[in-house]
Amino acid sequence: MTTVEMLRSHPVTDGVDRELLARTVDALHACAQACTTCADACLNEEMVAELRTCIRTDLDCADVCTAAAHVASRLTEGATAVLRAQLEACVAACRACGDECAQHAEMHEHCRVCAEACRTCEQACTELLTALG
Amino acid sequence: MTTVEMLRSHPVTDGVDRELLARTVDALHACAQACTTCADACLNEEMVAELRTCIRTDLDCADVCTAAAHVASRLTEGATAVLRAQLEACVAACRACGDECAQHAEMHEHCRVCAEACRTCEQACTELLTALG
Amino acid sequence: MTTVEMLRSHPVTDGVDRELLARTVDALHACAQACTTCADACLNEEMVAELRTCIRTDLDCADVCTAAAHVASRLTEGATAVLRAQLEACVAACRACGDECAQHAEMHEHCRVCAEACRTCEQACTELLTALG
Amino acid sequence: MTTVEMLRSHPVTDGVDRELLARTVDALHACAQACTTCADACLNEEMVAELRTCIRTDLDCADVCTAAAHVASRLTEGATAVLRAQLEACVAACRACGDECAQHAEMHEHCRVCAEACRTCEQACTELLTALG
Repeated sequence: MTTVEMLRSHPVTDGVDRELLARTVDALHACAQACTTCADACLNEEMVAELRTCIRTDLDCADVCTAAAHVASRLTEGATAVLRAQLEACVAACRACGDECAQHAEMHEHCRVCAEACRTCEQACTELLTALG
Repeated sequence: MTTVEMLRSHPVTDGVDRELLARTVDALHACAQACTTCADACLNEEMVAELRTCIRTDLDCADVCTAAAHVASRLTEGATAVLRAQLEACVAACRACGDECAQHAEMHEHCRVCAEACRTCEQACTELLTALG
Repeated sequence: MTTVEMLRSHPVTDGVDRELLARTVDALHACAQACTTCADACLNEEMVAELRTCIRTDLDCADVCTAAAHVASRLTEGATAVLRAQLEACVAACRACGDECAQHAEMHEHCRVCAEACRTCEQACTELLTALG
Repeated sequence: MTTVEMLRSHPVTDGVDRELLARTVDALHACAQACTTCADACLNEEMVAELRTCIRTDLDCADVCTAAAHVASRLTEGATAVLRAQLEACVAACRACGDECAQHAEMHEHCRVCAEACRTCEQACTELLTALG
C-alpha cells in the first residue's frame, strides 16, 4: 500500500507504470526478507553442513534484491542501464536461490516459502525489464 | 504474510512472539522503503535547497531500519543487546525523520506518508523493545 | 590488508586469485564510500538543483557496489552467475556515476575524487569478470 | 586515503574532526568486511554446527557497521542523536562479535583477524562518541 502511494506522490511523473514498479519493489523486499530468514533458519537445522550452498545463495539474493529495491525506488533522471543491470542481477540471484531452496522444499518449510518468494520476485523483475524496453 | 510464515517455519521456536516480530520487521521495511522514495522525491521538488535536512534524515532512517530488519529476522542464539541497541537507533532515526517530514506534510504528500511510516515504525520498535524486556 | 588476510584464511582455497579478489572488494568499498559522501556533499552545494542526477547516480552506485562487495566476499560454493551479473551491474553503475561526476570535477573536488573512485572500481570489476572467465 | 579526502572536500566544514571521522568510517567498513568473510568462512568449517552463534554475530555486526558507516559519512545538518545511537549499536555489535570470535581465535585464523577488526572498530566508535560529546 505505502509503496505505490509513495511512488505516486513523487514529483517525477513520467516513466514506467507506478503499480508495476511498486509490485516489483514489494516483491524485492519480500524476497530479501524471506532469504535473510531462510539463511538463519538453515543455519539452525541439524543438517546445516548440507545447507551451505543454500545459505550462501540466500545471503547473495538478499543483498542483490535489497540493492535493486533501492535503485528501482528512485525516479530522478539517471541511467536506466543501471536499473536494468541490477534487475538482471536479481533474475540471476532469484533463479539460483529459488532452484537451491526448491531442492529442500519438501524437508524444510522455510525453503519452500523462500523458493516461492524467489520465483515471484524473478517474475516481477522480468516484467519490469520488459516494461523498461 | 510471508514474513510471519517464514519466522514460524524457523527451527528456533523460543523467544519473542512471532506476530509481534513479523509486524516490526514489516514496519521496518515499509519505513525504509518510504524514506528511500521520500529522499528521491524531495530531491525533485523545486524547493530542494530547503529539504536538505529532510533528505538526510530520510537516508539515515532507511539505512538504520534496513539493518534493524536484518538483525530482527535472525533467531539464532546471539546477543540480544545488539538487537536492543539497533532498535533504539531505529527509534531515534524514526523520531528524527518523522519530525522533519511532519513539517512538510501539508506541502508534500510524500512527506506526509513518510512521516506516518516513521511513526508506525517507531511504535513497533518500542513495542518490540518492551517485549524483549 | 585485512581484506586479503581474511580471504586467505578462508577454508575454501580454490577459485579466483585472492589478491585480485581483495583488490576488487576494496575498490568496491572505496567507491561506495566515495559515492555516499559525494551525494551528501552535492546536496550541500548552492547549485544542488543542477546536481540531482549526480546525487541519484551516486546513491545507486553506492547500493550496487555494497551488494557486490558482499557477494564477492563469499567463497562458499554457489552460483558464479550471480557474482558475474552483480559485477556487470557495478560496471554499469560506476560508468554512469563516473561520467556524471566527471562533468562536475572541475567545479567540485568531491566529484573529481568520486569520479576517480568509480573509474578504479569499474576497472577492478572488469578485471575480476575477465578472471572469472 | 579517499575517505578523508572526500570528507575534506565536503562543503559543510564544521563539526567533528575529519581525520577522526574518516578513521572511524574506515574501521566500520573494515569490520563489516571482516565479519562478512568470517561468516562465510565459518560456514565452511567442519565444525560449522558449533559456529552458529559466531555466524549470527558476524552477520549482525556487518549490517550494523555498514549502516553506521553511511550515517557517519553524512555531514548535512541532521539529528546527531541518530549517529550517536547507531554508534552505540556498533559498540554492542562489535563487542558481541569480538567476544564470540575471540573464543575461536586459536583454532580459526579468520576468527582471530575478525576479532581484531571488531576491537579496532569498537574503539574507533567509542572515540567518535566521546568527540561528539
